Amino acid sequence: MHFHESDYCNVNRIPVSELADGQQLEQAFRAADKQLRVNRQGGKYILLKLADKTGVLAAMLWNADERTYDSFDRGDFIYCRGRTQIHNGALQIIVSDLERMDPSEVDLEEFDRYDAAKSEQLVGQLRENFAALQNESLRRLGDAFLADDDFVSRFCKAAAAVTNHHAYPGGLLKHTVDMMELAKLIAPRYPQLDADLLIFGAFLHDLGKIDELAADGEISYTDRGQMLGHIVIGVQMLAEKINQLGDADFPSELRLHLEHMIVSHHGILEYGSPKIPVTLEAVALHHIDNLDAKMSSYTSVIEADVSADGNWTNYNPSIGRKLWKKRD
Amino acid sequence: MHFHESDYCNVNRIPVSELADGQQLEQAFRAADKQLRVNRQGGKYILLKLADKTGVLAAMLWNADERTYDSFDRGDFIYCRGRTQIHNGALQIIVSDLERMDPSEVDLEEFDRYDAAKSEQLVGQLRENFAALQNESLRRLGDAFLADDDFVSRFCKAAAAVTNHHAYPGGLLKHTVDMMELAKLIAPRYPQLDADLLIFGAFLHDLGKIDELAADGEISYTDRGQMLGHIVIGVQMLAEKINQLGDADFPSELRLHLEHMIVSHHGILEYGSPKIPVTLEAVALHHIDNLDAKMSSYTSVIEADVSADGNWTNYNPSIGRKLWKKRD
Amino acid sequence: MHFHESDYCNVNRIPVSELADGQQLEQAFRAADKQLRVNRQGGKYILLKLADKTGVLAAMLWNADERTYDSFDRGDFIYCRGRTQIHNGALQIIVSDLERMDPSEVDLEEFDRYDAAKSEQLVGQLRENFAALQNESLRRLGDAFLADDDFVSRFCKAAAAVTNHHAYPGGLLKHTVDMMELAKLIAPRYPQLDADLLIFGAFLHDLGKIDELAADGEISYTDRGQMLGHIVIGVQMLAEKINQLGDADFPSELRLHLEHMIVSHHGILEYGSPKIPVTLEAVALHHIDNLDAKMSSYTSVIEADVSADGNWTNYNPSIGRKLWKKRD
Amino acid sequence: MHFHESDYCNVNRIPVSELADGQQLEQAFRAADKQLRVNRQGGKYILLKLADKTGVLAAMLWNADERTYDSFDRGDFIYCRGRTQIHNGALQIIVSDLERMDPSEVDLEEFDRYDAAKSEQLVGQLRENFAALQNESLRRLGDAFLADDDFVSRFCKAAAAVTNHHAYPGGLLKHTVDMMELAKLIAPRYPQLDADLLIFGAFLHDLGKIDELAADGEISYTDRGQMLGHIVIGVQMLAEKINQLGDADFPSELRLHLEHMIVSHHGILEYGSPKIPVTLEAVALHHIDNLDAKMSSYTSVIEADVSADGNWTNYNPSIGRKLWKKRD
Amino acid sequence: MHFHESDYCNVNRIPVSELADGQQLEQAFRAADKQLRVNRQGGKYILLKLADKTGVLAAMLWNADERTYDSFDRGDFIYCRGRTQIHNGALQIIVSDLERMDPSEVDLEEFDRYDAAKSEQLVGQLRENFAALQNESLRRLGDAFLADDDFVSRFCKAAAAVTNHHAYPGGLLKHTVDMMELAKLIAPRYPQLDADLLIFGAFLHDLGKIDELAADGEISYTDRGQMLGHIVIGVQMLAEKINQLGDADFPSELRLHLEHMIVSHHGILEYGSPKIPVTLEAVALHHIDNLDAKMSSYTSVIEADVSADGNWTNYNPSIGRKLWKKRD
Amino acid sequence: MHFHESDYCNVNRIPVSELADGQQLEQAFRAADKQLRVNRQGGKYILLKLADKTGVLAAMLWNADERTYDSFDRGDFIYCRGRTQIHNGALQIIVSDLERMDPSEVDLEEFDRYDAAKSEQLVGQLRENFAALQNESLRRLGDAFLADDDFVSRFCKAAAAVTNHHAYPGGLLKHTVDMMELAKLIAPRYPQLDADLLIFGAFLHDLGKIDELAADGEISYTDRGQMLGHIVIGVQMLAEKINQLGDADFPSELRLHLEHMIVSHHGILEYGSPKIPVTLEAVALHHIDNLDAKMSSYTSVIEADVSADGNWTNYNPSIGRKLWKKRD
Repeated sequence: MHFHESDYCNVNRIPVSELADGQQLEQAFRAADKQLRVNRQGGKYILLKLADKTGVLAAMLWNADERTYDSFDRGDFIYCRGRTQIHNGALQIIVSDLERMDPSEVDLEEFDRYDAAKSEQLVGQLRENFAALQNESLRRLGDAFLADDDFVSRFCKAAAAVTNHHAYPGGLLKHTVDMMELAKLIAPRYPQLDADLLIFGAFLHDLGKIDELAADGEISYTDRGQMLGHIVIGVQMLAEKINQLGDADFPSELRLHLEHMIVSHHGILEYGSPKIPVTLEAVALHHIDNLDAKMSSYTSVIEADVSADGNWTNYNPSIGRKLWKKRD
Repeated sequence: MHFHESDYCNVNRIPVSELADGQQLEQAFRAADKQLRVNRQGGKYILLKLADKTGVLAAMLWNADERTYDSFDRGDFIYCRGRTQIHNGALQIIVSDLERMDPSEVDLEEFDRYDAAKSEQLVGQLRENFAALQNESLRRLGDAFLADDDFVSRFCKAAAAVTNHHAYPGGLLKHTVDMMELAKLIAPRYPQLDADLLIFGAFLHDLGKIDELAADGEISYTDRGQMLGHIVIGVQMLAEKINQLGDADFPSELRLHLEHMIVSHHGILEYGSPKIPVTLEAVALHHIDNLDAKMSSYTSVIEADVSADGNWTNYNPSIGRKLWKKRD
Repeated sequence: MHFHESDYCNVNRIPVSELADGQQLEQAFRAADKQLRVNRQGGKYILLKLADKTGVLAAMLWNADERTYDSFDRGDFIYCRGRTQIHNGALQIIVSDLERMDPSEVDLEEFDRYDAAKSEQLVGQLRENFAALQNESLRRLGDAFLADDDFVSRFCKAAAAVTNHHAYPGGLLKHTVDMMELAKLIAPRYPQLDADLLIFGAFLHDLGKIDELAADGEISYTDRGQMLGHIVIGVQMLAEKINQLGDADFPSELRLHLEHMIVSHHGILEYGSPKIPVTLEAVALHHIDNLDAKMSSYTSVIEADVSADGNWTNYNPSIGRKLWKKRD
Repeated sequence: MHFHESDYCNVNRIPVSELADGQQLEQAFRAADKQLRVNRQGGKYILLKLADKTGVLAAMLWNADERTYDSFDRGDFIYCRGRTQIHNGALQIIVSDLERMDPSEVDLEEFDRYDAAKSEQLVGQLRENFAALQNESLRRLGDAFLADDDFVSRFCKAAAAVTNHHAYPGGLLKHTVDMMELAKLIAPRYPQLDADLLIFGAFLHDLGKIDELAADGEISYTDRGQMLGHIVIGVQMLAEKINQLGDADFPSELRLHLEHMIVSHHGILEYGSPKIPVTLEAVALHHIDNLDAKMSSYTSVIEADVSADGNWTNYNPSIGRKLWKKRD
Repeated sequence: MHFHESDYCNVNRIPVSELADGQQLEQAFRAADKQLRVNRQGGKYILLKLADKTGVLAAMLWNADERTYDSFDRGDFIYCRGRTQIHNGALQIIVSDLERMDPSEVDLEEFDRYDAAKSEQLVGQLRENFAALQNESLRRLGDAFLADDDFVSRFCKAAAAVTNHHAYPGGLLKHTVDMMELAKLIAPRYPQLDADLLIFGAFLHDLGKIDELAADGEISYTDRGQMLGHIVIGVQMLAEKINQLGDADFPSELRLHLEHMIVSHHGILEYGSPKIPVTLEAVALHHIDNLDAKMSSYTSVIEADVSADGNWTNYNPSIGRKLWKKRD
Repeated sequence: MHFHESDYCNVNRIPVSELADGQQLEQAFRAADKQLRVNRQGGKYILLKLADKTGVLAAMLWNADERTYDSFDRGDFIYCRGRTQIHNGALQIIVSDLERMDPSEVDLEEFDRYDAAKSEQLVGQLRENFAALQNESLRRLGDAFLADDDFVSRFCKAAAAVTNHHAYPGGLLKHTVDMMELAKLIAPRYPQLDADLLIFGAFLHDLGKIDELAADGEISYTDRGQMLGHIVIGVQMLAEKINQLGDADFPSELRLHLEHMIVSHHGILEYGSPKIPVTLEAVALHHIDNLDAKMSSYTSVIEADVSADGNWTNYNPSIGRKLWKKRD
């Protein structure tokens, strides 16, 4: 036992996003992941991911033993003493001591990236968006989704990606509502578009991610996500909901248009859409999805960058470029 | 009126597949397609597709009028007088007279590419294949498909493609049963494969084509086929059938494997699979599909070739090559 | 001489966009192009493009002689007698007689696709957009462009493409102002963007097309357009204007950002951008350009489609798909 | 000297394929490779590949000196004391002591991946396959290959790849005979195929690998393999053998077909075939090669996988995916 | 019989390369190709290729009968009356009468594109290039090629391509000697190159085209060319010649380098090289081949262009561009 | 203080290019780069790049402190004690002591890769090349560049790349003059080329690199280089110089040809040319650039290679191959 409970210092906890190089720290984290590893010389160490709601950092406990490793589970809260350092351009924590905490000992609000109030507000916005639709079938379908408590609760906590854009619990809902707002802004500029269709397509396009990604602990692919992908899953979710409505009532051509927007929203086959967009609404949906996803992920790259160069981020292989990061 | 019914010569009708250059002919065809066109000088002509069960040829009726054009519908039988010729390397028919026939006047057996006896035999083979499966869930699922008369009847008449491999009514069933035979031959050579899974995957992989392609008259894409594609439709058909079985009874992991084989059978994203194969059975299925489809389509190219060169077909842009066609 | 001037029937002229199959017509057109051709049998005919402000159609005068061919120049107005027909799915005109007209004999307003009033309104919108910029340097630069009468006049009449989106005189201005409106709508949703930069980038991105494309008569590439392209030309035009402002006054980093948005707006090297976007504004600009260009060109494809199929356009090779064209 | 010969413990030697994490071991290995390396701090260590016939593992001897490094050669047998551990998801051995052994001290049968009995059996199968050919020229050519003792002996020991499918001495023979079996199974299903040609093509297609890869010690490319590749080498080997037969006797068109199957069996130019398949036999050969190579390499990936996740292998960059590895 | 022999006008024959639009002509041609075709209305016509040594033009004899078609063979000389015209931007000849000529009636020198004197001179240059080599093995090998009369005679008449660069009898020799000259110029600028190797590689690189292309009549692929390609054939030709020298005498590493230059000279797999260049000489060879082939083919495009636009050729799909053709 | 000035041993300094494995050394270097890093255990070390004019090597000072790190700046001369070793196949230096030196203490000539005498000679060659041009406008333009002292001085010191071909101060001038020599050699072989244009294009093609790359210290991209690239910058530099000449005097078509050669010299869009070459001179320029760049970079790869294998370099990912390095 390295700490006494009374030692826990919950005041002035530094959020992960505000940690800087060379800081001593002694505070609580959520152990988002843990692995017992062996270095080349055969020594054991624990590789950790330490998280709070503002972010996640890699951490190392050198010269670890299996007892320490077994003393907590993934997802537990742990109290850590250590210091930060930059290694290969990324901030990490060298932990010298750690100890499992009881959830009652932490301020849960600091650890849950999932922001219930924010989600509630976004669901409200969703509800308003549905209410404003002209097309009654779509309005009823939207309401049916919102009336499904299990769906709403899982939707609220879903992430939109493992490492890319909106990669946090609640990220999917945020991306979805943002897309609907873009759809509402853009539709009036192109009268050839059926605005309701585009807005509802924005709602549906990524729903399959609710089942593609496991949201508990580290975001990761489910078996079903790995084998079917969110596009096929999304089509299945839509089918289920329409079936609940009573299949007969829902216009079949409208359903086809909704399914097509899900199926084609990646724009080209190479990106996993089995069909390319062939309706104007599907074309528009693809482009505003692209815009929103790129703005979100590129901004994350800039925010996460720790390079010393004042003007440029490090080269980021997943986006194939350095980004200009200087803001006036 | 150009012919008298008594003039109809149904004896010695030359099947389309046996027509050669420079033949006079006077016999019945099915009008698979008709278009009234204008040439550059403003003269009207009718462009036809004349078919029987052995094939289809383009045909022209020069100096046509609208009355003639309106005198028959697509799909009708017409009695034609004309002669064959080769134009741009393809055989065609120059029609001088034509007249709508009553179906009672033709030997229907000569016009229906769909071979009911063959289909019945193939369905029998399907039934045996299902009966031989070890896995009871798959056996029950297979039986459920066969118990669905509407499904069986549409499956029997479906084509596997518009212009490619197995592009004729009944072609899908043929390709499906051939694939299952390949699966049965190959599975024992790779004990790491779950033979039942591979065999059932062969059955399922292209089922979506039943709804992707319209089989009546010329084979063509349905709206749903164009917007969703046979992969997504196939997943939907499987869901429906499993739902009918009673969802609860069917093992969920097994279902996932079946869905995955449908989803990934094109092998790569560029060819319209939203996910690449990640199970050994899906990998094997992709490769035997590729083998059977290529053997079928390349053989069709050779059979349809009319080039004068004894050793080689004409260059075929869709397969990007000439084929060696000389057979000893 | 085939017509007497008194014969000219200027009343009830049918605009090109309203012509349908099988119409007799006798009215004025602009001869957008003319070619004297020989058919395979050696007969001469004139291939024409007949235009008014609503569109352009191919036309043929069979059995033409050189005297007729020489009787008018490209760009002249000609009075034609003929009829329309559909050939290979496209509407064309078979001209039986034609005669050069004096411009005084036509209602010029019907032939000029360039809509001066519309352009004036768009330039006004441009002026307002510049006035609303926070950044003084950009505001001054924008005003300098508008103060250059020669620039404004050429900008107003420029097309944005030869055959693609906004392919008509005035199309570039329309696309430019539409892009600025999109930029104004979208910028507030992404506070990480410098709105002024994005809006000004929208103004600049395609300016090089003023010199890349010749706007008189048929839209076509200039030598300079062919050899440098509108991206390099655009950078040159910006340099010239900044030089006129007095180089010293303009912030060099701001200039670099403007140049970068021009240079990178095609998004990837394969589409002719020598550098990919590395600023958030350049990334956003690329995506809204893509959105606006696709919405414009796909809508044109639908509007221009003459296929008989009620739901789908013909397959369009340049966009690699058929489009759903049914509107409720 | 760390061990006494009498210490050698040859009983209960654990085969490489059965080693697990955290085992102490003291037993003989073949030193498939050795490198003297310097770590970042300047300390020397020996990086080894320790092999027996069941597999190969990386191993490290820390704090090594040059005397130890020089005490044995690549290919020698060494007696090692050490323990296993998992590092970055792969099993490795930390060696604490090692000593060169005389070959007489080991049970050679345990170290020779090359399985002479298996090879003999496969050569027998080859002989039967040749005997069953209808085509006399091919039968004679096959017999000529088998009559060439040097060829047979090198063929038996050749590997089919450095790291991919069938990457072990004898792997080429195994892959070749497996391919011939597939050819024999599949040919009857496609009567349009010349079965003899396909079967003989399966025999020939990868023969060039005998000279492309050096089989002694670690499998690696020869200079000739690097500069010409097994396709060109294979064509050369066929030429030599036909020349020995007496060139005049062998039908030239048949020879061309054999050469073409070698040349085109990779299917597309991008994979190193200078010509794509243009005969049905070459097309079929490419596809069954693909099937057998993929089944072999993917199964190897699954067998070699040490990830903790029960359902999935680690992501494997060379095949671009994780594989489902759970077997019921 | 349309002409009397005495009518033959051999004076002032206009070479094909000097024919212009709208000329009446009555003179001899070689019938490089002939096809009896049927037009859409069923009328027969003969499609001809009329050639002399300066070029080849398409020609049409309308309203032809089979007797006329049978009155001459491909390759015969025919006397034609007709006139030239431009059709779809290409010059062609409308033939009104034609008649087979006896070869004795024509000035053979005017019809043979193959220029014996030129070839003799180029072979002389080849001989000098070989004599100047430092490397004795290469000198002997070169002499062996030149001592082979059959080889020299076939080499002299070979074309380097069907439609691309140096696509005429003698073109291969020209391209080969030009490449050797480039090699001689460039090698001294890069002392790291083995000049002899590069020069000899230039000699060898395309030799396989002698057997890949049939040079009699129209240039076309042989069966062997189609199935193996000139790279594999070239390696075979080198092997044969070295075997004749006596295999034992030729340094094996030198041979490997020669083979590698043949194998890799297309530079990348996608262009049909089964291996990419890995020696500096092979890298240099690829680049000078590229330079010479492009200069030759692009110049041909410019010379063959008949577009009216003074500055630009028509768009040429095989090179994916228009070329600037204006020469001062 | 680890050394006394009197200790400095400037005699027998070993140039970087001659250092070998396992050498003790004590001598001066230029600190081309320095980074303070933390290893996984939290220990600090300095990562250095130690350079002289013959090359640059990575170096490590273990167990460093911030005082040492701060005791010298990038670009300073430092006196080092240490030893060389090979790590992961690359030579590096383990530094045990280091100390900043005053520039007066080193023989500057040994550290400046920039060779002023060589540059002077190359500028002389440039001057002669310009003097030999037939085209007066080009001669005047060339002289104007040479009359600009600032330009000449920056050109002399510019590198042609960061890590690729001619990646050293002075490398751009070398590449440029080499290209001009190639142009002079090759132009006479293709009379269809305008030699002056090609030679001047060779001069201009990479000039933009003067501003794209920062030459002081480590070669790296400038902001402008990153955002515009040397192609766009090169066009801007040409414009400036022509403006200085007095725009009116310079023939506009000639200018367009010069600009086009700069713009298109990468040959294809994928490599960053916004337009592909459409003049014969631009085509030729692209190919000789390719040849010279490849010969230079591949030779560098061979020279820098430290693999033990006598025949082959290590696999080099940036060129996608191993190179044959054995020289006789």
